[in-house]
Amino acid sequence: MTHGNGFSRLDRWLLQQIYRSAGRPPIRFTLANSVEVSPPDASPVAHIRIADRSTLLRLLFDPEVAFGDGYCQGRITVEGDIIGTLETLYQSMSVADHHSWYGKIVSNLLAVLQRNSLQGSRNNIHRHYDLKNDFYRLWLDPQLVYTCAYFPASSVTLEEAQIAKMDYVCRKVQLHPRERVVDAGCGWGALALYMAKQYGVTVRAFNISHEQTLWARWRARQLGLSQRVEFVEDDYRNISGKYDAFVSVGMLEHVGLEHYEELGNIIHRSLDDTGRGLIHFIGRNKARPFSSWTRKRIFPGAYAPTLRQAMNVFEPHEFSILDVENLRPHYARTLEHWLSGFEKSTSKVEEMYGPDFVRAWRLYLAGAIAAFRTGDLQLFQILFARTACRQIPWTRAHLYRQKQYDDEGTRWIRAMS
Amino acid sequence: MTHGNGFSRLDRWLLQQIYRSAGRPPIRFTLANSVEVSPPDASPVAHIRIADRSTLLRLLFDPEVAFGDGYCQGRITVEGDIIGTLETLYQSMSVADHHSWYGKIVSNLLAVLQRNSLQGSRNNIHRHYDLKNDFYRLWLDPQLVYTCAYFPASSVTLEEAQIAKMDYVCRKVQLHPRERVVDAGCGWGALALYMAKQYGVTVRAFNISHEQTLWARWRARQLGLSQRVEFVEDDYRNISGKYDAFVSVGMLEHVGLEHYEELGNIIHRSLDDTGRGLIHFIGRNKARPFSSWTRKRIFPGAYAPTLRQAMNVFEPHEFSILDVENLRPHYARTLEHWLSGFEKSTSKVEEMYGPDFVRAWRLYLAGAIAAFRTGDLQLFQILFARTACRQIPWTRAHLYRQKQYDDEGTRWIRAMS
Repeated sequence: MTHGNGFSRLDRWLLQQIYRSAGRPPIRFTLANSVEVSPPDASPVAHIRIADRSTLLRLLFDPEVAFGDGYCQGRITVEGDIIGTLETLYQSMSVADHHSWYGKIVSNLLAVLQRNSLQGSRNNIHRHYDLKNDFYRLWLDPQLVYTCAYFPASSVTLEEAQIAKMDYVCRKVQLHPRERVVDAGCGWGALALYMAKQYGVTVRAFNISHEQTLWARWRARQLGLSQRVEFVEDDYRNISGKYDAFVSVGMLEHVGLEHYEELGNIIHRSLDDTGRGLIHFIGRNKARPFSSWTRKRIFPGAYAPTLRQAMNVFEPHEFSILDVENLRPHYARTLEHWLSGFEKSTSKVEEMYGPDFVRAWRLYLAGAIAAFRTGDLQLFQILFARTACRQIPWTRAHLYRQKQYDDEGTRWIRAMS
Repeated sequence: MTHGNGFSRLDRWLLQQIYRSAGRPPIRFTLANSVEVSPPDASPVAHIRIADRSTLLRLLFDPEVAFGDGYCQGRITVEGDIIGTLETLYQSMSVADHHSWYGKIVSNLLAVLQRNSLQGSRNNIHRHYDLKNDFYRLWLDPQLVYTCAYFPASSVTLEEAQIAKMDYVCRKVQLHPRERVVDAGCGWGALALYMAKQYGVTVRAFNISHEQTLWARWRARQLGLSQRVEFVEDDYRNISGKYDAFVSVGMLEHVGLEHYEELGNIIHRSLDDTGRGLIHFIGRNKARPFSSWTRKRIFPGAYAPTLRQAMNVFEPHEFSILDVENLRPHYARTLEHWLSGFEKSTSKVEEMYGPDFVRAWRLYLAGAIAAFRTGDLQLFQILFARTACRQIPWTRAHLYRQKQYDDEGTRWIRAMS
């Protein structure tokens, strides 16, 4: 033990600063196996090991990025349940003021560098969604739906819950045969194909990820739906034509706050006088950016808005908000499925992208579970319509009256899979 | 005919200005039975008669107040369905810019005069809600619920729909026996009494209308609920104590935009760490004041916010928005019941308050029906909770699974009446 010398006293003081800025969580922190800070009362729920002093110093100046990067590089290890540890940290940090001045500068700098201009969006989306499809196939459902699922009952699998979500969206929007639908940010195209196949609509689906668009077109051919579903490799800002319904699931996070009115203009010009639509996105209770680490390493340019901010899309054109639902617990459950699939495939992922990548994605998925469980993140579905829309049902009972909420329902979902 | 002389030419020109500023509706306008402006193509759906030139001039300078006052004084008469006429006017005016410079000054002046300070609120509420209870008993349901009802099925009566609404609110908030509930702006107390009787909670209910509070206390004694429901004649800003749930139905309209954060502070200090609540209010798609006439003659100090504005209540304290529902068609239906009850009682109302009052309330009720039908007004229920709230159900299916959506349900509502 080296507790006696001056360096260790400094190390211990620094470690205590980290413990304090994290809101004094019930977690044990050690540096290089020699200096330790432990919660005074409660027995710690986890043990965070910091390998060296340079990692410790980086944690002080820019905790978010340093924690993420340190974890990915193996310089920070977590003993104990990673999700539980992150939940504990979210909770303790929500009381503490955990933003250092340096972290704030990095955060603002990232926001400028990752602006979602037409070219910026292309770069930002490319970095995340143009990873090999083979990577996502390891842990997503077979249709590659990379957004929050909907679990109408606890016995429902991930695959079924993604189908249930797609059907829920269609029922909310009240799709009818031969209607024209535009899907903005369509991912691998599962929802566009589902709407066409199950509800008889025609769909134009936009996406700027090249890999995803190729896959979606291949799936459309495979399902014989190429005549009714057109996958366009282009930005939502270039959507043309008139539609009965506008659907966007998991795109708003990538639009960027400064472009919400522009998105509203595009919805306005795309929708008929009686049109309606649904926007599904990760949101927040209070305005705050994603962690710098998430924006730097996982989702460049991403932002989860509050409902207040999201209203910038709808209010300028006087859309009526009909229904807002918060599906936060469903995203925690979805992510649990993803993480569990991911953990089963780590050896393959490591072969593809190396061990740092494995740790980065583990941290991202576990962090997201913790965020949705603790209420740091929300998942909103907003149903909206023009005031002249006549497709508004009298109550929401039609969403629940059906097939899906008992054993028979589960069988129905299985039949659709 | 006097079309030839100079005065009539001026009159005709003035009448045309009114027709234009109303957005050229399919309505025939005449002045003193001698000058006429009619829609060129369509056959008119109604005929608006303006009795004299001074009314015509007032219409030009302050259309909202002049139309309302002129109608009440019998100087403006509507031949044809009054609701349909107002709907037509709402629709045509929504395309036209119908705010004169003078009207805007009047509108801003009213906003200043009717500020909702503690004393201001008392005056504003007194003017509307301290009309004799006997007046409201003529056309409201027996429990005197003076907010939007909920019609789960078309066969449901107004009385049943008010009970269905109260139960819907209780199910949304997930009330459990022995919980403590605060009801802000409780009207004649029906919801507070319903929650106590049907859900076994204890309630403190606040209201600054003296007439209503006396009535509510009498009802509590009658129902043997005085021990569990306390009616407090005081402003919501003086709410004290800790509660499991915060409920407010039809008060936000009277709070005033500049006091939303203050209301949020009061909800924050009143709710336990796991608390939740519901706010029910008239809202809008886009920010805009009530008509000057409504604020001058019917609802002094009232304001219907957009969702964006309503978020000022919730975001500062990071409440999670769980569910927003727009019940606009239910308010149109509710108002149709009220207007029909009112029309059956006009001779009694005229005895109480005179013929101008009868016409004023007819215009107010018919105008509100038109506003909810055309989408000029919305009715929002916002369900919210602290992030640590554990009463959040997995889906919203529990709201609809029940008793209420078939014949059996209708019988159930009848049993509760």
